[in-house]
Amino acid sequence: MPNAINFAEKFSHIPECWQPRVIAEMNDYQFKLARLDGEFIWHQHASTDEAFIVISGSLRIDLPEGPVLLGPGELYVVPRGVEHRPCALGEVQLLLIEPRGVLNTGEQGGERSAPNDVWV
Amino acid sequence: MPNAINFAEKFSHIPECWQPRVIAEMNDYQFKLARLDGEFIWHQHASTDEAFIVISGSLRIDLPEGPVLLGPGELYVVPRGVEHRPCALGEVQLLLIEPRGVLNTGEQGGERSAPNDVWV
Repeated sequence: MPNAINFAEKFSHIPECWQPRVIAEMNDYQFKLARLDGEFIWHQHASTDEAFIVISGSLRIDLPEGPVLLGPGELYVVPRGVEHRPCALGEVQLLLIEPRGVLNTGEQGGERSAPNDVWV
Repeated sequence: MPNAINFAEKFSHIPECWQPRVIAEMNDYQFKLARLDGEFIWHQHASTDEAFIVISGSLRIDLPEGPVLLGPGELYVVPRGVEHRPCALGEVQLLLIEPRGVLNTGEQGGERSAPNDVWV
């Protein structure tokens, strides 16, 4: 029997922050859940837009033209090539949607890079 | 200043059932909100997977191998070419993610087809 993917159940298996975990694929796109806390680094993805949907908590995404604030049930799509810095105001549960192979630190790389394509 | 897209606010402008409304794009994909009530028709999309995320209510998706049940905070991706029939058990608020240009009735068409690419 086919089963739905429950975000809360999946988050119960994701204790770490800033480690996106794949929960499903749609064509060549991936749905990823990530737990965030505090500030990430400024980065950009040169070849793709990136969609953020907040499941719980409050997320600020700093952008060149100013910050965007997201709460539960809110979506923001960061356009390709636009520098952005996610900042979780307390713990955030986030759903990310982007093409397979996109690195969390984008073109910047560095020590905050998480392994890609890890499923939960 | 950039603004988040709030699902509840968008739904307040969607009184009709079975009329998907576009709220955002990511590359050549669209995020659509739809209010559902009751049974849709069996159909399939030959060239693409289709992602369903329930925002509120209870949705059953009938599939050849049996039904999948989705509540709020649950995701299911119907694979390309797989026949499916959404059935809303009472009113459902749904987020759909799929490539631009996908018709709600897929290859079947008919009187339940909704206009495509209508934004809210």
